[in-house]
Amino acid sequence: MKVNGTAMIVTRKYSISPETIKRMITYLRYLEIQKKKGIRIISSKDVTSYLNVPPEQFRKDLSFFGGFGKRGVGYEVERLIKTIKKILGLDRKTRAILAGAGRLGAALIQYPGFSGINMDIIAAFDNDAGKIGKQLKSTRIYDIRNIGSFIRKSRVRVAFLCVPADSAQSVADSLVRAGIKGILNFAPVALVLPAGVYVGNVDMASEIGNVVYHMKITN
Amino acid sequence: MKVNGTAMIVTRKYSISPETIKRMITYLRYLEIQKKKGIRIISSKDVTSYLNVPPEQFRKDLSFFGGFGKRGVGYEVERLIKTIKKILGLDRKTRAILAGAGRLGAALIQYPGFSGINMDIIAAFDNDAGKIGKQLKSTRIYDIRNIGSFIRKSRVRVAFLCVPADSAQSVADSLVRAGIKGILNFAPVALVLPAGVYVGNVDMASEIGNVVYHMKITN
Repeated sequence: MKVNGTAMIVTRKYSISPETIKRMITYLRYLEIQKKKGIRIISSKDVTSYLNVPPEQFRKDLSFFGGFGKRGVGYEVERLIKTIKKILGLDRKTRAILAGAGRLGAALIQYPGFSGINMDIIAAFDNDAGKIGKQLKSTRIYDIRNIGSFIRKSRVRVAFLCVPADSAQSVADSLVRAGIKGILNFAPVALVLPAGVYVGNVDMASEIGNVVYHMKITN
Repeated sequence: MKVNGTAMIVTRKYSISPETIKRMITYLRYLEIQKKKGIRIISSKDVTSYLNVPPEQFRKDLSFFGGFGKRGVGYEVERLIKTIKKILGLDRKTRAILAGAGRLGAALIQYPGFSGINMDIIAAFDNDAGKIGKQLKSTRIYDIRNIGSFIRKSRVRVAFLCVPADSAQSVADSLVRAGIKGILNFAPVALVLPAGVYVGNVDMASEIGNVVYHMKITN
């Protein structure tokens, strides 16, 4: 297996789909595991057979960002990790806050996978007096009435939104007024927010409904 | 606005993407809200402007399943709800189990959105002696060593997989051996399972990584 020695070009395009970006992060996770095992060169087949992704998909995903290699030529694991991180903006620490410190919020704070993408949840907010002032792991829970001033002072730009459906829009509005630019929303609500704010949605009912549908048509 | 009176044809196709199915469930949720408000006829623009989906996308999604209506003609809310539920297999109750009753599993059991898709989590399983025998909401937690026999007896076919990454594959194997056909996996692991088992993945690191990427390129 020859090692591809050509320079990797890092570009950012605006039309990359969420699906591509999410796959890039699963590639990154697999590459980090291989790096820990001491593996230095890897083929696209290695990556994709582990992740159940067609090899053409992997090559197509990488091609959105410029030249990474050629068919039949291996990738340098460490270099590919660095490049993917740079492309995705994960080479620097990203700070986030958590709005809503219920069960799901608590699960997110304890989630071990965020360190791999250089993500720190620096503060949590809730309206429950029984929670305010307590810690979740090493993250302190503050009064949600102070969330705007915290965002302005800390200049944090990313938020996890884990509040109940009926308050999701109003909390999102206050996040955005204070300067939040990216929200991962877990409430089953379509948020209406100004341009320039990116919202990702994790919708548990849709996810399990999709499993039920595909399970039934294949069985 | 004229009401479309033609019969709606319910078909199931095998090439429907997960994204389409997930959008169908968000349409369903919105339609249920409108029904509760007493609204009987709705336009595609009403649905899509609320959900930030292009109207063409909505019509295209519905077209995968046969004829629902024509441009400029309204949809009967109740009829569309019934048809979408039938298409997605949500017209009948689906039972599921939860493997791993940690913080995330507990959050899922309390999640109010599953009733809208006719989903019941009938049992939870964990290996923590401190949890076994307890209840989460009205769901009892059992010893995970008994998960196989429970699946065989109850003939449940759907599972939420919320165990740590390093045990996800082995727990998934035991689920499938006992008859599980659809898994929603929350562990950051690519499960390798036989054909005929459908796996959906909710990957928190990928979801927030996608938000960070798109936030940075648009700001």
